[in-house]
Amino acid sequence: MTGSSPISIQVYKASIVHSLSLNQLEFIEHGAIGVNENGRIVFVQNLAANPELNIANSAHIVDLGSKIIIPGFIDGHFHAPQYSFIGTGMDVPLLEWLAKYTFPHEAKFQDAEYAQKNYDIVVRRLIENGTTTCSYFATLHLEASKRLVDIVQKHGQRAIVGKVNMDRNSPLYLCETTEQSISDTTDFVNHVLNKQDSLVHPVITPRFAVNTTGKLLTALGKISREYDPKVRIQTHMSENTKEIEMVAEMFPKSSNYAQIYDRHGLLHERTYIAHCIWCSRGERGLLHTRRTGIIHCPNSNFSISSGVLNVRRLLNEGVKVGLGTDVSGGYSPSILDAIRQAITASKMVSIGLGSDADKSSSSTGERNIPESFEELSFAEAFFLATLGGAECLDLADTVGNFTVGKDFDALVVNSQSEGSRIDVFEGDTISEIFQRFLFLGDDRNIEEVYVKGKEIKSALKK
Amino acid sequence: MTGSSPISIQVYKASIVHSLSLNQLEFIEHGAIGVNENGRIVFVQNLAANPELNIANSAHIVDLGSKIIIPGFIDGHFHAPQYSFIGTGMDVPLLEWLAKYTFPHEAKFQDAEYAQKNYDIVVRRLIENGTTTCSYFATLHLEASKRLVDIVQKHGQRAIVGKVNMDRNSPLYLCETTEQSISDTTDFVNHVLNKQDSLVHPVITPRFAVNTTGKLLTALGKISREYDPKVRIQTHMSENTKEIEMVAEMFPKSSNYAQIYDRHGLLHERTYIAHCIWCSRGERGLLHTRRTGIIHCPNSNFSISSGVLNVRRLLNEGVKVGLGTDVSGGYSPSILDAIRQAITASKMVSIGLGSDADKSSSSTGERNIPESFEELSFAEAFFLATLGGAECLDLADTVGNFTVGKDFDALVVNSQSEGSRIDVFEGDTISEIFQRFLFLGDDRNIEEVYVKGKEIKSALKK
Ligand SMILES: [Zn+2]
Ligand SMILES: [Zn+2]
Repeated sequence: MTGSSPISIQVYKASIVHSLSLNQLEFIEHGAIGVNENGRIVFVQNLAANPELNIANSAHIVDLGSKIIIPGFIDGHFHAPQYSFIGTGMDVPLLEWLAKYTFPHEAKFQDAEYAQKNYDIVVRRLIENGTTTCSYFATLHLEASKRLVDIVQKHGQRAIVGKVNMDRNSPLYLCETTEQSISDTTDFVNHVLNKQDSLVHPVITPRFAVNTTGKLLTALGKISREYDPKVRIQTHMSENTKEIEMVAEMFPKSSNYAQIYDRHGLLHERTYIAHCIWCSRGERGLLHTRRTGIIHCPNSNFSISSGVLNVRRLLNEGVKVGLGTDVSGGYSPSILDAIRQAITASKMVSIGLGSDADKSSSSTGERNIPESFEELSFAEAFFLATLGGAECLDLADTVGNFTVGKDFDALVVNSQSEGSRIDVFEGDTISEIFQRFLFLGDDRNIEEVYVKGKEIKSALKK
Repeated sequence: MTGSSPISIQVYKASIVHSLSLNQLEFIEHGAIGVNENGRIVFVQNLAANPELNIANSAHIVDLGSKIIIPGFIDGHFHAPQYSFIGTGMDVPLLEWLAKYTFPHEAKFQDAEYAQKNYDIVVRRLIENGTTTCSYFATLHLEASKRLVDIVQKHGQRAIVGKVNMDRNSPLYLCETTEQSISDTTDFVNHVLNKQDSLVHPVITPRFAVNTTGKLLTALGKISREYDPKVRIQTHMSENTKEIEMVAEMFPKSSNYAQIYDRHGLLHERTYIAHCIWCSRGERGLLHTRRTGIIHCPNSNFSISSGVLNVRRLLNEGVKVGLGTDVSGGYSPSILDAIRQAITASKMVSIGLGSDADKSSSSTGERNIPESFEELSFAEAFFLATLGGAECLDLADTVGNFTVGKDFDALVVNSQSEGSRIDVFEGDTISEIFQRFLFLGDDRNIEEVYVKGKEIKSALKK
């Protein structure tokens, strides 16, 4: 709470739910959040403890009654061009899935007009579902990737956008030369940085080690360090056991998958990598040391039969973890679905049905006592979907919860919205209503979506 | 197609998708279904092959354009009193979950008025989600169970309703004497049968072996055989490993769980049992011999960390399988969710992450080559949600698909309904749109719900 407030302050009175840390979910049943004209949070107040709002007369108060304000959802891994085949073609594992469905669909984004039309549908759908920040994989096509940037700007979503790099092991119709890949990436990064839009950032996006030469990886790592502001990196790792075998043959000098990326200068504190299901203890240690984050995409991991990530162990080991939908390996664009499926995955791990590289590699029988891993609580899964994602995406200074000084990226949740699937019963607590939203709610309950203080969902209908 | 049609025939022109068997999903892109005044299907026609409708002039044609008609969903396992705490309290496994959440909530149904109010909310919500047939567990309370019957009749849902039996190992506030349990069950069965309503059936419902004495089980098995029409049985089995240990101590004369039910006369062709995750080869063989069905409740199995059922093996062994939501062990009342999670569970099994009593019991190392189990296709999961469920619930003569002579229990699905979460792209086939509905659709896409030819969803709004 600040002493004096600027004139154009906007005050939202509502119930507030947000994560202070992995273990601390704060419920403020009668709360108020003040947001200034720059979309920054200037105070968060518990009205039950402190009923007087210390604001200028000209402040505008929006009373949301018993609706709940939560931080906007952060999707750390989304393939924008794959949305057009979402919900179909999940009958084969990763490498076949890429060849049979993904690559032919992505090739169509050679056509920038086609891309623009498709990307508009995608971004709208994500905003409908409350994704205020999304880290996108586009395709390798420079012009189409720029169009995706235009569209997130048009809709006001916070976004990190990457032109994909792939200079080997893909069909000719979806492959670039190393030189072209590097120069198009430089072009793309400059293009986005020159916009000087605080909501949109470029990200270096090598598809995965299978699709990239060592030369390209080295050049990309260099780009990620030489700009000011420095550039993020996103990629995939250790999703599928066949992928890991292939990568090991391709990079015989590295003793494991994480080391490949590390040797090419790609692992640092602005890097976040999807999946990492099969990482060994050593690889997890390296990710921790480099402050690299992992984006957990449980729907995708289930849907293309990749495996079940042990998130609890990563958290215990101090690795940063966020959530991703990985559309369309995952069939849902909603982070609510990612929350539910992350909990499911953690329950599977807790009863011994997780995927475990440590276990399969220790044939010596030394580890006779199986470790036990507690399931993720709804509060912890919600943390991953908000503040955990912000930490991975190097955005924790800006978004992820309601801390004074951060931007107001928020969702107004109404459990009793029109058509709501949530039934509320006498005596329900705010925690119970919030849990019902997490498990049963959908876009109908997300009535308003704010990015940096600006409401962006209602504009979609125009 | 019949030669002559009664005067009051109703003809629905639309795309039709239904299962002919586990392996045969039929798509009729331009189809027509004729329904007579008794709600029976009198013809199903592919208009592309045979464009002329052979009907009387007075037949009423409803042209649904490109909407899809599918059979109504069948929920084989639902606890009506547990809906009031859906989406909350899934942090503990079965036995603790019963004591901590379920029993205190179910005790409230002592109050018939409370029950009536709650059950109305539940049944409405199921109809909204397209559940045309539901097999309900009520509570042990006779009056409240009768109220549930009244409510399904009021709304026109097809239902199988059971007063729960539990005469031991539950808190005093939710326990009955053996004598009371038997006499209330007789009363309840007579009450429902006397209604002579073809849409509502009674079902004998011992909670599970943990909560029932041998004397009670024997009496219940007898009741299931002595009425005309004969009465169905539903219960739980082998959901949780601790439950199995407890049951083994309680019934030392039986060599396994299935044998307990069998020795008390409870396993026959009108019996269907939820879960059965941990059944051994011998138990599965017994269920197959007795023609007893298994209701697979994947959301519940994931949510209260019970395990992952191997459905493929059951199907290979010839056991009948249907789907259930098991609210509120499962957090979703929608069979669409059960379809999705059944596919997820089968994918886990396909990569070796299923629960397996066979595996854990063979410590001799004889079975060195692990069996492999193919995942369920979307078509197979849809079969389980419709015709498979009908087979388990002894209703396959009446519902489950569009066969001439069956009742017209159906859903009208519109992928482009108002607020739909499904985006359709140029060139999408009917199979792709149908898949998108299965993976991304919700109650908004289920525009009309028919039971025995009567539309029952629109009436909910009145
Ligand atoms: Zn991905
Ligand atoms: Zn149950």
